[in-house]
Amino acid sequence: MKENQSPMEVRIQKNERLDDLNRKGYQIIQDPKRFCFGMDAVLLSEFARVKKGETVVDLGTGTGIIPILLEARNRGGHYIGLEIQKESVEMARRSVLYNHLEDKIEIVEGDIRQASTILKKSSAQVVISNPPYMKDNHGLTNDNEAMNIARHEILCTLEDVVREAAALLIPKGRFFMVHRPFRLVEIFGTLTKYQLEPKRVQFVYPYVDREPNMVLIEAILGGASRVTIEKPLIVYQDKGKYTDEFYKIYGY
Amino acid sequence: MKENQSPMEVRIQKNERLDDLNRKGYQIIQDPKRFCFGMDAVLLSEFARVKKGETVVDLGTGTGIIPILLEARNRGGHYIGLEIQKESVEMARRSVLYNHLEDKIEIVEGDIRQASTILKKSSAQVVISNPPYMKDNHGLTNDNEAMNIARHEILCTLEDVVREAAALLIPKGRFFMVHRPFRLVEIFGTLTKYQLEPKRVQFVYPYVDREPNMVLIEAILGGASRVTIEKPLIVYQDKGKYTDEFYKIYGY
Repeated sequence: MKENQSPMEVRIQKNERLDDLNRKGYQIIQDPKRFCFGMDAVLLSEFARVKKGETVVDLGTGTGIIPILLEARNRGGHYIGLEIQKESVEMARRSVLYNHLEDKIEIVEGDIRQASTILKKSSAQVVISNPPYMKDNHGLTNDNEAMNIARHEILCTLEDVVREAAALLIPKGRFFMVHRPFRLVEIFGTLTKYQLEPKRVQFVYPYVDREPNMVLIEAILGGASRVTIEKPLIVYQDKGKYTDEFYKIYGY
Repeated sequence: MKENQSPMEVRIQKNERLDDLNRKGYQIIQDPKRFCFGMDAVLLSEFARVKKGETVVDLGTGTGIIPILLEARNRGGHYIGLEIQKESVEMARRSVLYNHLEDKIEIVEGDIRQASTILKKSSAQVVISNPPYMKDNHGLTNDNEAMNIARHEILCTLEDVVREAAALLIPKGRFFMVHRPFRLVEIFGTLTKYQLEPKRVQFVYPYVDREPNMVLIEAILGGASRVTIEKPLIVYQDKGKYTDEFYKIYGY
């Protein structure tokens, strides 16, 4: 693709749609038959903190949702989104161009398992990931490979993501991840195995009287062992009605 | 002490008081200048589940609060409270007698670090502990040794408690513990080191918009890696007013 291409020249395919992100006017190209970003990607990008001038790697960026959301909310950094699926890479690149972010966000085609070979070792201040949550093959669909890859550990495991994150980070670099609470013990064990010390954890409870269905984690490479469990993030007040606090963060 | 001694013969010293536990009419003898049980002991005893006929060991029983509360709430088991401080042992024994529980609760004087030598290895279905939370010497008082020992890792560490719990339990036996959330990563790491797999975790948040200040944990010896984070337990609705759910559990 040409540089400085204007949004007019970015093609939206028939099977795709353009969704408004409600942040700085940014839009994202998605194919609802493949995979659309969820609440988890938005909450992760709000939970993460990026400082000016930092290099941020998103492992498994899909359509580029996390770098685009991070760019909207933070004072500026250099974002690299690594993605293995050709079609997603191509869509992410068009979204970057559409939003005129080609100087800030780079989409790289490649395998998470080789991330620290493809990119530079010990070079990122921040690594972020919304990895597949499921270990087993339960819930695999026959007809949607993109969704299967996004949700199940088909192309990479939790340990692959954590190992590569640790290899990409500088000492005291921060790793941000969203995952399912039922794997928390394994997550903590895997993080500490690679010297990524969990420092900040927040549980997302759909209702105040329900089990959490997401957990947000910040780990620091070589950090000291002491974790802050943050106040609960509660999504709904009543059926279909967000809590004020959640609406403030989520904004949709 | 004689068997079948009536409460009339159980002496309450001048420095002590008798507190109603609001459960089956049970009372406990406490010395407010030494140490009084807190919300953590009550929540732990409500979180733990004891089945009929099980043997339960409480590591660091203090004045015997946890066995007495467990006995009140569960269908019956054999409780052993291990305690190193002579004065606490003596008070706990008087409380047991006062409540006519001498057939059900045994108070043993001894060091947690030698628990699996003093008691029988692989003999308990349940081990429970409300151990000291603090690693450093911050907040140590000069004049209250009993409180220092209860709150700080002076006489035993987290690892001592976990190691002995694992040694006392039968395979698939359950370990229940209350602790501070800031040590959660270390707690999970120590538990799994001794094949105690965390299976159920509940955070206690003082208010819905605050960080939790307690965490309740159930681990199973040789369990599979999958943890349930339970719904949040929120203590106060407004200042001084418990939430309905908390009041139902706590009952004071």
